[in-house]
Amino acid sequence: MANASSDSLLQRLGLSAPLLLAPMAGVADAGLAIAVARASGLGAIPAALLAQDRLRHEVDRFRGAVAAPLNLNFFAHVDTPPSREAVERWRAVLAPLHAESGLALPDTVQAGRRPFDDDAAALVEQLRPEVVSFHFGLPEARLLDRVRATGAAILSTATTVAEARWLAGRGVDAVIAQGWEAGGHRGMFLQADADAQVGLVSLLPQVVDAVDVPVIAAGGIADARGLRAARALGTAAVQVGTAFLRSPEALTPSFHRRALAHACDSDTRLTNVFTGRPARGLPNALMRRIGPLSPDALPFPYAGSLLAALRGRDGERERGDYSAMWAGQSAPMAEEASAFAIARRIVEG
Amino acid sequence: MANASSDSLLQRLGLSAPLLLAPMAGVADAGLAIAVARASGLGAIPAALLAQDRLRHEVDRFRGAVAAPLNLNFFAHVDTPPSREAVERWRAVLAPLHAESGLALPDTVQAGRRPFDDDAAALVEQLRPEVVSFHFGLPEARLLDRVRATGAAILSTATTVAEARWLAGRGVDAVIAQGWEAGGHRGMFLQADADAQVGLVSLLPQVVDAVDVPVIAAGGIADARGLRAARALGTAAVQVGTAFLRSPEALTPSFHRRALAHACDSDTRLTNVFTGRPARGLPNALMRRIGPLSPDALPFPYAGSLLAALRGRDGERERGDYSAMWAGQSAPMAEEASAFAIARRIVEG
Repeated sequence: MANASSDSLLQRLGLSAPLLLAPMAGVADAGLAIAVARASGLGAIPAALLAQDRLRHEVDRFRGAVAAPLNLNFFAHVDTPPSREAVERWRAVLAPLHAESGLALPDTVQAGRRPFDDDAAALVEQLRPEVVSFHFGLPEARLLDRVRATGAAILSTATTVAEARWLAGRGVDAVIAQGWEAGGHRGMFLQADADAQVGLVSLLPQVVDAVDVPVIAAGGIADARGLRAARALGTAAVQVGTAFLRSPEALTPSFHRRALAHACDSDTRLTNVFTGRPARGLPNALMRRIGPLSPDALPFPYAGSLLAALRGRDGERERGDYSAMWAGQSAPMAEEASAFAIARRIVEG
Repeated sequence: MANASSDSLLQRLGLSAPLLLAPMAGVADAGLAIAVARASGLGAIPAALLAQDRLRHEVDRFRGAVAAPLNLNFFAHVDTPPSREAVERWRAVLAPLHAESGLALPDTVQAGRRPFDDDAAALVEQLRPEVVSFHFGLPEARLLDRVRATGAAILSTATTVAEARWLAGRGVDAVIAQGWEAGGHRGMFLQADADAQVGLVSLLPQVVDAVDVPVIAAGGIADARGLRAARALGTAAVQVGTAFLRSPEALTPSFHRRALAHACDSDTRLTNVFTGRPARGLPNALMRRIGPLSPDALPFPYAGSLLAALRGRDGERERGDYSAMWAGQSAPMAEEASAFAIARRIVEG
């Protein structure tokens, strides 16, 4: 079953190796995607934080460098602008941190990123990525149909069996099953309680048994052992992110690389203070002072806009006090090596 | 590496199959151990809640039924009697539940179980189990030496790399690496934050790389796929508990069996309200009303003694409102089948 499902998925995605690069918004562009594609994996470009011109440029870079399928990733969250009262509560939480640093705290919030919309669909129609993946569910049917009409394979993330069934029922080509171990944002969209999130060893066989589409394992997989384990649990391929964060092809800032180099297995936490949604990262001053989970954090993605000044200061000082340093629980396994070498070791090892 | 480590462990434990029964205090006695031993796995009897006479009787039952190695499991927690103030805080939390039910709430608390002590060591010297395992660390060196002098193989649970190193440094024969997915009590003893607990896919390779002793995988493993995955990650064997809870050989109460039959992957939660230590179980009235994690829960094991009346009422009414229903995240994979058949399917699958 694992083999048939894997062959079918690889054929649909146009791949020769069962490895997908996790789209990591903010720390990766075409450079990492090219390296993974050259190692026979699926290169991914995270579109959520990129302006359209920048995204076009990155896709051109990828197409110019390698003849391989490309995965564009988008967010499919529901955008709910917060009330004035909610903004004031969040400002009150953040005010002392700004006062200490002598920084101004903006009066209003901005989304900074939009869910997948008509403009994004038009871009997919122009750029023709072979694979389109979504996080936080799926866009409305009308938009999803436009993506499907381009011939792109469609993937989305499930963190529970119920979410996997929901996605399979809406015609995705494969489900990415994201375990508790994974770095970055939890893809959860039906489940609200982060404490209910399921470890990969438990999640994978239950999702594989529940849906008829191929399943891709995500979370905690950092080397060939993880790929073999995921295959043993019945999945068709793996999606790997954190393992690439120390490679020169990633855009990971120096403070984030330093934190990764010193991480241990139990260091990461789920936190909502950077964006409003639970995501796994290495602890820093902001998580310790107001989190890791704050009931006052504005809904995704609004929580983040009020942190812009603190993040800017981090950049100047090369510190990660107020900047998200996403990482999964296998962060200590991330090697300082080329992404190409890391990818080859995963698929050949 | 997996194979050499597995052969060495199986030889040390006197086993022909890489399957250990998880010791499940309260829901298992010799019956389940015998069934698993007959299927070539390691039978375990949870000693922590049993009086010495009862434990002797269960060991006799096992020895009379099967010629196979036996694992006795003990708790190695530090016993810290709570202050009067702490007891009053916990009583205040529980008082409304007792008032509603017309039940008396005791004034004082009792431990109800003791950490591994001289009496337990003397019992091990008499009963000569082939394997002695500990949860919550290890007993003091003097007591551990007495166990080692009997020739018993010594196992204990680690939930992080640091705990695995700590155990290996004290001479355990193997480390049981317990993932986030696992049902029942977290074995954590150096780490205090349950949110820091690591998923099995991430924990196993990091523990395998960190220690020189064989590693046994625990948490979320319910069938042959889980065993193959654990082996792929470099471990020598698996320890399985929840998968056996619906077998006739288990002592699982009817309300607990019903809850298992209806469980889904994201139902379980870590809770401390039953014993004072975080443990994973299916949600019920007590967890919903005062938990799942309460800052007022008395330290382990004292929290539980004040629940005796509510638990007794549960028993009379065949309800699980106030009784722990431990289960791991693979609870939906627990089959209503004989423990022998379940064990054979895991090792032959």
